[in-house]
Amino acid sequence: MDIQEQHDRGLALRTALFGREAVEKRQAAFGDFGKPLQHIINAYAYGDVWSRSALPLNVKSLAMVAMMAAAGQPNELRVHLKGAIKNGCKPEEIQEVLLLLALYCGIPAANDAHRIAADVLREEKLL
Amino acid sequence: MDIQEQHDRGLALRTALFGREAVEKRQAAFGDFGKPLQHIINAYAYGDVWSRSALPLNVKSLAMVAMMAAAGQPNELRVHLKGAIKNGCKPEEIQEVLLLLALYCGIPAANDAHRIAADVLREEKLL
Amino acid sequence: MDIQEQHDRGLALRTALFGREAVEKRQAAFGDFGKPLQHIINAYAYGDVWSRSALPLNVKSLAMVAMMAAAGQPNELRVHLKGAIKNGCKPEEIQEVLLLLALYCGIPAANDAHRIAADVLREEKLL
Amino acid sequence: MDIQEQHDRGLALRTALFGREAVEKRQAAFGDFGKPLQHIINAYAYGDVWSRSALPLNVKSLAMVAMMAAAGQPNELRVHLKGAIKNGCKPEEIQEVLLLLALYCGIPAANDAHRIAADVLREEKLL
Amino acid sequence: MDIQEQHDRGLALRTALFGREAVEKRQAAFGDFGKPLQHIINAYAYGDVWSRSALPLNVKSLAMVAMMAAAGQPNELRVHLKGAIKNGCKPEEIQEVLLLLALYCGIPAANDAHRIAADVLREEKLL
Amino acid sequence: MDIQEQHDRGLALRTALFGREAVEKRQAAFGDFGKPLQHIINAYAYGDVWSRSALPLNVKSLAMVAMMAAAGQPNELRVHLKGAIKNGCKPEEIQEVLLLLALYCGIPAANDAHRIAADVLREEKLL
Repeated sequence: MDIQEQHDRGLALRTALFGREAVEKRQAAFGDFGKPLQHIINAYAYGDVWSRSALPLNVKSLAMVAMMAAAGQPNELRVHLKGAIKNGCKPEEIQEVLLLLALYCGIPAANDAHRIAADVLREEKLL
Repeated sequence: MDIQEQHDRGLALRTALFGREAVEKRQAAFGDFGKPLQHIINAYAYGDVWSRSALPLNVKSLAMVAMMAAAGQPNELRVHLKGAIKNGCKPEEIQEVLLLLALYCGIPAANDAHRIAADVLREEKLL
Repeated sequence: MDIQEQHDRGLALRTALFGREAVEKRQAAFGDFGKPLQHIINAYAYGDVWSRSALPLNVKSLAMVAMMAAAGQPNELRVHLKGAIKNGCKPEEIQEVLLLLALYCGIPAANDAHRIAADVLREEKLL
Repeated sequence: MDIQEQHDRGLALRTALFGREAVEKRQAAFGDFGKPLQHIINAYAYGDVWSRSALPLNVKSLAMVAMMAAAGQPNELRVHLKGAIKNGCKPEEIQEVLLLLALYCGIPAANDAHRIAADVLREEKLL
Repeated sequence: MDIQEQHDRGLALRTALFGREAVEKRQAAFGDFGKPLQHIINAYAYGDVWSRSALPLNVKSLAMVAMMAAAGQPNELRVHLKGAIKNGCKPEEIQEVLLLLALYCGIPAANDAHRIAADVLREEKLL
Repeated sequence: MDIQEQHDRGLALRTALFGREAVEKRQAAFGDFGKPLQHIINAYAYGDVWSRSALPLNVKSLAMVAMMAAAGQPNELRVHLKGAIKNGCKPEEIQEVLLLLALYCGIPAANDAHRIAADVLREEKLL
């Protein structure tokens, strides 16, 4: 496959997952300086790894929530919490991942992740 | 509920997930010095959080794999990879979580997690 | 012991450590979504671990300051700096922990921890 | 060498790297409480390690950018991005370090570092 | 004070804390390549920060145990667990710090720290 | 460009950097299970990011040493220390990066990195 084709497949999936407006805003955030990073995100993250089909999208989203909360990455956690809801995850499913986090990564990590999740759930009128 | 009851419920679930031999070995590992920690694991981790029912066990296991790989916890990752297989996760499902890890936590974290997963899959005759 | 009893013992200790207003605010922060996490904090953190008696509360607080600063958890660090002062720790004792941090976790971690500590000390009229 | 002499050599180098105004502001930030930490920064970081001469300052700055981005230290990353520009690093050199970061520490770390770098480059009229 | 004097004061304290044999072995471990790092350890860590007197040595040791366990630094954790015992800390005091770790940094961190602590306590005939 | 072409360009660069034997061993380490990860390493890390030309290879290697030491990734640190030497970095240049690490990420991280660097330098007859 040509890399441009893989990039476009990735960008299409990314747009389906998060909405056109959010993706366009992120794509433009760092101007020309950010273009190679956007290429990595579109072509390699979404065009390759996210395009694999062993797991349904809602399970991938829950794995991403677990991973980003454990890595202490609040901005990316917010992105994938929104994706999780778009992919059909219920609040109590997200909550259960964050309670595992409390026991396995500690209460402070869980507190931060709950704060972000509560914000996102309120924005989505689910809390 | 009495705490002892919650502890026993947790220990029963933990034993079902990982097998009697593995759990007895872990329970005894640090002698009396480790008893309060084992209480936390049995009563609070397995007796409370793992006993919740919003997510099926295989999805919890994949979330744990994501979380422990992202947190750089190789010993616990090994434990939950074994649990994931026991809970019915397929090698390609585990692989897909570890490829997300490569993009979102970096290649070195994914390399370490692949090494441990390949070990576990060989032990289970799945590789 | 019944879990509810352990929870109530923990909530009483937590309230004694941080004050009623602060604890009520934290308890309510994430609404129903946060209730199971608050149970973990009250029943397991304060009702079990903090209720142990091998170390005096001021030494526990200094250990918590060291732990949260090393873990890069600024929100929880702020909470336990306030607890440390309530438990009788002096500014120069806190400072000495944060200077160990500079050498053993690096200057940037120590800089962030000093910023939070200076804020808390000013709020408490100790700086 | 006397420690005070090493301190003064360090403070002079630090001032040359970041400008008098920035250094005076950082030195005063935590009042007396921060004095021993400022001594560590001036006498040990700048008076010793930064005063070594095996590497030119621009390469040291790029190593610091790599290190602080990998360690998840946004405040210190900003400081050393400014230093990198002062030491003659070009935007595309900084970008190349941050793209290595994307692959080896993950996209979220690279996203955060790009955000800070874009801010600094805009302040310096380089973006 | 002359830096050499501060270095010697630090080396004397380090030797008192960990014993001549252990310190000589660590000093020699990386040959000439490691000399500047040993200077940092002796002159800055032990000659400055550890030589401060706001906290007694046993409390500093417990803070170091908390910090190194939270930072995921097993080699340094082992060193300071031995120092803690030399400074008069009791096994149940160390245990209490590691149980706080379980709740605030997660069970896997606490498991690793318990393993190292149990090793050290067995070497010291305290378990 | 076709992805296979980018992959092959990356594999050629990776082989030039680390030698055929080392790369073949790493490529085969996890069998079929590791193939998609090896694709990421060859096509995206070496075929894209490492193939950029703003920085000379020795500076990229020093940035990688800084990044992997700061991230606490000992296996990858060893790989890139070998690459650094192959790319012409001198022991005292590597040492200077690891002394910055001591001050900015702490003594324990610097100790671990010195241990690995001393091993690699001995293997290469440079210590």
